[in-house]
Amino acid sequence: MRNTKLVCIGLGHVGSYVLTYAMESGLFAEIVTIDTAPGVAHGEALDQSQSTGVPGTDYVDVRAGDYTDCADADMIIVAAGASILPDPDNPNARPDRAGLAKRSGDVVRDVMPKIAGQTRDAIVVFITNPLDAVVHLAHQTVDYPVEKLFGTGTMLDSARLRWVVGKRLGVDPKSVTGYMMGEHGLTAVPILSRLNVQGTGWEDLETWHGEQLPGPEEIKDAVVGAAYDVLNAKGWTNAGVARSALEIARTVMLDQCSVHPVCTRLDGEYGLPDVSLSMPAVIGREGIVRRMPPKLNEWEIEQLRASADYILATVEKMKP
Amino acid sequence: MRNTKLVCIGLGHVGSYVLTYAMESGLFAEIVTIDTAPGVAHGEALDQSQSTGVPGTDYVDVRAGDYTDCADADMIIVAAGASILPDPDNPNARPDRAGLAKRSGDVVRDVMPKIAGQTRDAIVVFITNPLDAVVHLAHQTVDYPVEKLFGTGTMLDSARLRWVVGKRLGVDPKSVTGYMMGEHGLTAVPILSRLNVQGTGWEDLETWHGEQLPGPEEIKDAVVGAAYDVLNAKGWTNAGVARSALEIARTVMLDQCSVHPVCTRLDGEYGLPDVSLSMPAVIGREGIVRRMPPKLNEWEIEQLRASADYILATVEKMKP
Amino acid sequence: MRNTKLVCIGLGHVGSYVLTYAMESGLFAEIVTIDTAPGVAHGEALDQSQSTGVPGTDYVDVRAGDYTDCADADMIIVAAGASILPDPDNPNARPDRAGLAKRSGDVVRDVMPKIAGQTRDAIVVFITNPLDAVVHLAHQTVDYPVEKLFGTGTMLDSARLRWVVGKRLGVDPKSVTGYMMGEHGLTAVPILSRLNVQGTGWEDLETWHGEQLPGPEEIKDAVVGAAYDVLNAKGWTNAGVARSALEIARTVMLDQCSVHPVCTRLDGEYGLPDVSLSMPAVIGREGIVRRMPPKLNEWEIEQLRASADYILATVEKMKP
Amino acid sequence: MRNTKLVCIGLGHVGSYVLTYAMESGLFAEIVTIDTAPGVAHGEALDQSQSTGVPGTDYVDVRAGDYTDCADADMIIVAAGASILPDPDNPNARPDRAGLAKRSGDVVRDVMPKIAGQTRDAIVVFITNPLDAVVHLAHQTVDYPVEKLFGTGTMLDSARLRWVVGKRLGVDPKSVTGYMMGEHGLTAVPILSRLNVQGTGWEDLETWHGEQLPGPEEIKDAVVGAAYDVLNAKGWTNAGVARSALEIARTVMLDQCSVHPVCTRLDGEYGLPDVSLSMPAVIGREGIVRRMPPKLNEWEIEQLRASADYILATVEKMKP
Repeated sequence: MRNTKLVCIGLGHVGSYVLTYAMESGLFAEIVTIDTAPGVAHGEALDQSQSTGVPGTDYVDVRAGDYTDCADADMIIVAAGASILPDPDNPNARPDRAGLAKRSGDVVRDVMPKIAGQTRDAIVVFITNPLDAVVHLAHQTVDYPVEKLFGTGTMLDSARLRWVVGKRLGVDPKSVTGYMMGEHGLTAVPILSRLNVQGTGWEDLETWHGEQLPGPEEIKDAVVGAAYDVLNAKGWTNAGVARSALEIARTVMLDQCSVHPVCTRLDGEYGLPDVSLSMPAVIGREGIVRRMPPKLNEWEIEQLRASADYILATVEKMKP
Repeated sequence: MRNTKLVCIGLGHVGSYVLTYAMESGLFAEIVTIDTAPGVAHGEALDQSQSTGVPGTDYVDVRAGDYTDCADADMIIVAAGASILPDPDNPNARPDRAGLAKRSGDVVRDVMPKIAGQTRDAIVVFITNPLDAVVHLAHQTVDYPVEKLFGTGTMLDSARLRWVVGKRLGVDPKSVTGYMMGEHGLTAVPILSRLNVQGTGWEDLETWHGEQLPGPEEIKDAVVGAAYDVLNAKGWTNAGVARSALEIARTVMLDQCSVHPVCTRLDGEYGLPDVSLSMPAVIGREGIVRRMPPKLNEWEIEQLRASADYILATVEKMKP
Repeated sequence: MRNTKLVCIGLGHVGSYVLTYAMESGLFAEIVTIDTAPGVAHGEALDQSQSTGVPGTDYVDVRAGDYTDCADADMIIVAAGASILPDPDNPNARPDRAGLAKRSGDVVRDVMPKIAGQTRDAIVVFITNPLDAVVHLAHQTVDYPVEKLFGTGTMLDSARLRWVVGKRLGVDPKSVTGYMMGEHGLTAVPILSRLNVQGTGWEDLETWHGEQLPGPEEIKDAVVGAAYDVLNAKGWTNAGVARSALEIARTVMLDQCSVHPVCTRLDGEYGLPDVSLSMPAVIGREGIVRRMPPKLNEWEIEQLRASADYILATVEKMKP
Repeated sequence: MRNTKLVCIGLGHVGSYVLTYAMESGLFAEIVTIDTAPGVAHGEALDQSQSTGVPGTDYVDVRAGDYTDCADADMIIVAAGASILPDPDNPNARPDRAGLAKRSGDVVRDVMPKIAGQTRDAIVVFITNPLDAVVHLAHQTVDYPVEKLFGTGTMLDSARLRWVVGKRLGVDPKSVTGYMMGEHGLTAVPILSRLNVQGTGWEDLETWHGEQLPGPEEIKDAVVGAAYDVLNAKGWTNAGVARSALEIARTVMLDQCSVHPVCTRLDGEYGLPDVSLSMPAVIGREGIVRRMPPKLNEWEIEQLRASADYILATVEKMKP
């Protein structure tokens, strides 16, 4: 019988957390690490492997490997590439992930053919930024099944939205149903018209809360800013996006068909051009089973279109 | 330092599953069992205690005890009392939980003074049926803090609603936001006006699904019937309600302020009389932080009123 | 990609707990129940399925099925057959599991050909009593790969041993390394010569503890009696053995190569005849990788031989 | 009712992993971070807090705080201070943790009075290196209850020992009972005379394995070297020691009385001077319930004495 197997590509701040959560998840019997810095891939795998000697820890066969390990992998999570950095001169800076376009383009053009040379069965989840352009370029680079290659997208932005709203209302973020759509980044769109706490929508939440709630622009700014608050405080962000990737792994490996906002190549939804961006999608063992585009209000559609344009402009910047 | 502590009262089909999930939860260092059949309380605790010798199992100090154990308990879960039984002559029977009123009235009048004689700090969660009448009588019997004594209520009916809808749509029930309100039982009300899958409501789900979805009466029947499908097949139901009780325990012990539909004594919401029934509520370390009554449509309000009346009629039947 | 899949055969007191722990384990995307009472198989699966609607619960595709479901199963856990019952006239009775021989023989002769008609790849774990005779008969009935068909054996007796010792010493049973060998039942042998708490053996533990510790006969009686204390108090035992089965499932599905005492068909170890009984074994994705028979002292070997004889006598009783 | 609460002091490579595992553990409702770099304390807490918005994540009230947060903490884990660094010119270097003595001495003299100014109830677990000297100095600096202040010590070295042995034998490290004693570092002593796999000791394991196993010096070198393999490959080590700290947290918060090798101030065991070093100890809600010093052979005792001397020499180096 075949072991369940994950390949982690890129073991920096984010990839090492993906590995850490994956080790704890019980979803994989084998985990293989790949990094352009072989020492890092080996060191992270070795540290985790030695940790399996701590009582109470599940043993996982974790080790550094290479792309041939993709051949029988169930999932491949790609966190390779550079990260945005805080601006040492401006503690409130919001450096655009699109600034990584050129370098990440090289990453995609390097990684995707290597993966596709081994498999077209594995579910491939990208985390590399600028995420949406990266996913789009990955599909342009290799004809990988569209439902099997996608990105964490606004799962993280959506977590921050639920956290912002939950904190404001004094309720568990898990009890907030809501998400951001579009780009994972500066142009992400909060879909307040669909947000609810157990079915109670934005305006009624305001009444319940007894204080005015912010409008969509202000919420958008708070969510986008939440990322930079972390970045500027500790120098990078990693926990949230790695947790998101593992939640995707869970719905894939257990074939749960959970609905999460993830970055996927669209098929004309909302009259948008050929672009990859985030919207809610049903995710199971074969990847994206089906997208579930919600009804949007005018502001949201307009913002989503702007976000799509922004992503396509970034895709242009990725050219070699 | 004080250990975290749970007291389980009633160790029948449901109580033994509450105990099982509680042992696995990591929420409690001590668990005490109480049952009118001391052998059962002792046997269930002993079986679980011996299980802590299985590798990979957390040790918990689990043992049979008595009501003095409530004095320093964090939580008390009451699953004492009789259960409805299948009708041997009718495999499709739907015996009303209200038929247990008299016997459960005796249980409440026995148990509540014993608990209140030891503590008014512990969070007390009832599972005993007919649940809503039981919670109402418990408050009438003893002046326990209203926010600290409530029932699992329609958490289970709501799980079934999400399961019915999830199965129909082919999505994870966890991705369905929705619940039943009112009685835990025959008159429970599906709140389809608030139900959504990541913000997509009932009518739009129908469009997305491409097939007609049932109306509220049909959904109500399906949810109520789901319980009896289990009852008539195996003779009782236990897993779902026990899981629900532990999910409440989690939000209490970790002070998460999750929003769940639970049975609580109302304060005039919807112009309803003094009654206990289920509606969404924010639950944390001190119990019910605040209720969150959603906007309802006419049918829902009408049904909720009928449900409240039915509960009050059952309370009457509980008199000794 | 194929889902991870478990088939549970027999959904009584033990099987329903196996199912419950399996649902919580995250090891399986699909679980199928089979029982000679189809209502029970359906009812237990349905109850668990509906429970996936409770927030915080992983979705698993759980349903009643039939033996064709074994064809692509990763594991099959068999808890079918009758259970020993308390003696209503004697609260201290210790009814012998061997009394179930005839009926369980019929179970094995019914179940094994049906399994083997579908697969010889799945790992088959028996729980049915009298366990050792059942495993032996299963191998005699069908030529299933010897390493892929075994029983929970003394994993449960060993848990009770660690629990008895841990309670006596005031330490977590998890910190006790030790086990019973031989029959799962009255003739199980405590291997005190190998028992240790982090390397401190029996005699040194006595010194550390400051009080005399019991000898092997007394320990044996305490461990065997622990089972009957549960049986006579609640009418059956289930939590411990079901937990044990899931711990086996974990080392199989994650290919951990953990060492557990399980019932396996021997290959002449200790000069024993062709018999199936429990000894420590390395267990991974392909089942029993290798047995690890410890050095025993004279009393232990003598007892083990007696236990083997007892098991073979029970095998005789299983004949139709 | 009071929330369970952890304070994490020091949020570098190790502390951030302690925080990550603590967030996942379900043991704490509140977690507070403290760091001499306030941005780091805030950034790490904020990243984790935002992560609670990812579906499937328990909400924890995590935030940056200060020493007054220790007043009602259940546990305080200290990972403050500098780390050893790889030697850029020598990929096989093994830099001694003792080289951090002076700087870590300052950390202890800064942190301990601040903790003790708030509480003497919390269980304080040190991870800061050179660990044993740090624990010893902590007790010399403040009269904190000896059983409530200890260090992760050789829990990590022991994990590596079990991993080295498990890999060699092809068995799960969890199935290896064994540990290192003495210093967490270069002079740690493998206690092969007590090591066993389910009761089968070193020499019999050799027979079972069919190949010669290394002697204690070689094993010691392999275990010590395992740490440096990670350090030199990725630049630091963190996963293993953070997992160890959380396993201690588990036995404390659930009052499990597990036996782990941890660094504790001795009371004359083995005729050793007043020193703090690692040996197996029973750990529960009140900290170290009792030490369990195993019988050692001559080589082991000699090595342990040398290790104690080394630690005391390092304590000297910590003087301001």
